[in-house]
Amino acid sequence: MPAKGVLVAVTADVVIAGGGVIGTAIAWRAAAAGLDVVLADPAYGDAASLVAAGMLAPVSEALFGEGALLRVNLLALARFPSFAAELEQVTGHRVGLRREGTLAVAFDAGDYAALTRLTAFRRSAGLEAEELDSRACRKLESFLTPDVHGGVLFPGDWSVDNRRYAAALREAAASAGVRVVRDRVTAVLTAGGADARVRGVALAESSEIGSDRVVVAAGSWSGAVHGLPAGLRSAVRPVKGQLLRLRHPDGMPPVLTHTIRATVRGADVYLVPRADGEVIVGATQEERGPDLTVTAGAVHDLLHDAMSVLPVTSELILAETCAGLRPGTPDNGPIVGDAGPGGLLLATGHYRNGILMSAATADAAVACLTGRAPAPEWEPFGPGRFLTRQGER
Amino acid sequence: MPAKGVLVAVTADVVIAGGGVIGTAIAWRAAAAGLDVVLADPAYGDAASLVAAGMLAPVSEALFGEGALLRVNLLALARFPSFAAELEQVTGHRVGLRREGTLAVAFDAGDYAALTRLTAFRRSAGLEAEELDSRACRKLESFLTPDVHGGVLFPGDWSVDNRRYAAALREAAASAGVRVVRDRVTAVLTAGGADARVRGVALAESSEIGSDRVVVAAGSWSGAVHGLPAGLRSAVRPVKGQLLRLRHPDGMPPVLTHTIRATVRGADVYLVPRADGEVIVGATQEERGPDLTVTAGAVHDLLHDAMSVLPVTSELILAETCAGLRPGTPDNGPIVGDAGPGGLLLATGHYRNGILMSAATADAAVACLTGRAPAPEWEPFGPGRFLTRQGER
Repeated sequence: MPAKGVLVAVTADVVIAGGGVIGTAIAWRAAAAGLDVVLADPAYGDAASLVAAGMLAPVSEALFGEGALLRVNLLALARFPSFAAELEQVTGHRVGLRREGTLAVAFDAGDYAALTRLTAFRRSAGLEAEELDSRACRKLESFLTPDVHGGVLFPGDWSVDNRRYAAALREAAASAGVRVVRDRVTAVLTAGGADARVRGVALAESSEIGSDRVVVAAGSWSGAVHGLPAGLRSAVRPVKGQLLRLRHPDGMPPVLTHTIRATVRGADVYLVPRADGEVIVGATQEERGPDLTVTAGAVHDLLHDAMSVLPVTSELILAETCAGLRPGTPDNGPIVGDAGPGGLLLATGHYRNGILMSAATADAAVACLTGRAPAPEWEPFGPGRFLTRQGER
Repeated sequence: MPAKGVLVAVTADVVIAGGGVIGTAIAWRAAAAGLDVVLADPAYGDAASLVAAGMLAPVSEALFGEGALLRVNLLALARFPSFAAELEQVTGHRVGLRREGTLAVAFDAGDYAALTRLTAFRRSAGLEAEELDSRACRKLESFLTPDVHGGVLFPGDWSVDNRRYAAALREAAASAGVRVVRDRVTAVLTAGGADARVRGVALAESSEIGSDRVVVAAGSWSGAVHGLPAGLRSAVRPVKGQLLRLRHPDGMPPVLTHTIRATVRGADVYLVPRADGEVIVGATQEERGPDLTVTAGAVHDLLHDAMSVLPVTSELILAETCAGLRPGTPDNGPIVGDAGPGGLLLATGHYRNGILMSAATADAAVACLTGRAPAPEWEPFGPGRFLTRQGER
């Protein structure tokens, strides 16, 4: 990897700003498609993607009525397994895809009614769902609290080990010839007047990189890149999430097989088991700007809620507490597609579904970069919807 | 500091096994008294002393009737300020001694009755105590929960920043000429038959050290040293304690001035403010052997109890979770004094009061090492009480 400050007159077919799962997936696939790719990230390997549970769940409570978002999530889910399989084949590493499904549980009749409405919505989208009484829930997960009223098994809601997945993406990108610059893209540079086109990027600490195509995939930091069209810089905001990584003590058999979701005290909590004995507990949703502190109250609430669902959680080791920033948008949808000036592509704003959407986003971005049209499911999620000047849409 | 394996034919006036606050305090004072001291610890600077709240409180609920232990604690408390002042003078560093006192609060009439009994006991020992109603408690600490029933202020129960204190001790020891060997003492070596005397120590990874005086100050690990008289190796057991280090977010004024103690759900919880904006929350007491894992249940309970006492705790940053091992003994008293074979001194088993007792223990140990008698308060705490063979007492 080149040291800072020694890059002179670097050029590339495409520069990608941001090395989370979105940027790295695009970099890998673009390089595999024959493009010469430079990825710039000051903290490559330390993105928001590391603070994630890795749930591959196309439908959540928030999605009633968001039909377009559901369709792109379903596209993403359908694409994920083959993408992950290729990634595993290329790198020789497992990414920890778990297909046991997700068990959503309810603690009272009101919770259960809400779950039933969600189930009907999911079925209308063609997703499998199986209603279970309390006993059947506890047969699936024997450590579940006896207080559970009932639940629904979603066999198609999987999970992936986000850290293994991100590491495999970085390895695949490197194998495909992606060059990484550990620096921050400060601006997209353009040439020409009314019909301006991208000519490269400016970096915070090293020289410019010349390129006639630039992908901004900087998650919550996307708005910090100068040169984006008006409206887009303010379209992405950080939504803080805190989560916990628990670990089984030596010798304790796994306490969990399925991902479990529940609503406790009005807040969603999920517990996601990993193949290596970890259990992820998440997550808060906080509008606090770019704040990455881990707070006593959030850790308390997550532990409390996890122990309410699965009391044995109290015996697990608290291995890590962490906070990350989801890139949220005004309509909760991602921003993927070409934006003016010519040659500029955005792939950001994936909010809670960055891992899920990464494979399909890479497909869409590579289509744009190679002059093909992305899948029609992406059409509603172009950058144009957030442009503020009239006539540009 | 010498590298492992290169120590050949090292000798010293005294070898100290263990570099926590007890061993380091003894090393400093012994070197200051003119002795040539080697301190051996494989993890010097990383002792149980780091996982402590640093409360200087001679009386706790457990001490009813333990008159001898109270007397030695009072001796230790009286000695601490001058010892700390000398340490600050020698090193030029503050150790964070806080003299605001401790506020013990009660949540109901039963709690308050228990607190009243404790107060009477403390007064009988000559310690100050001031009963306060709920309003007076909240006047002292404005963030205290309104649920508090009443409390007692103990102006003489102070605290010290255990990490600053331990670091200052290490610096003072180094300045006084103490040599540190980063290795573990595996055995006390003796010479002679029936009238055996110490001739040095064996180390795990380097050569022996020759010395006719050895101090075992290895806390919970003291029993791992071969060559101790029968009975003493099993006299010290680890009592696990988990605690939290909270920190104020930037710009938040301090939420706490006094140490606060309370009983929540039958468990003692304390919150100890530090000069640098930390708040320590402790601590569990667990009989789990040498287990240093941080568990989800313990962190939950500590956070819950802290938030019950001081709700604003939820806004603080959870900076660190940690676990340590207190060296407990069958009668909760320390083991300080000469043991057979001749030249062997023990200074261990300080249980919950290692920081408090460190200064007075150093005095007692240096007295023994220089042929003087320690203060009479130490008489009940000699190693002889745990010897198992008849006729040795």
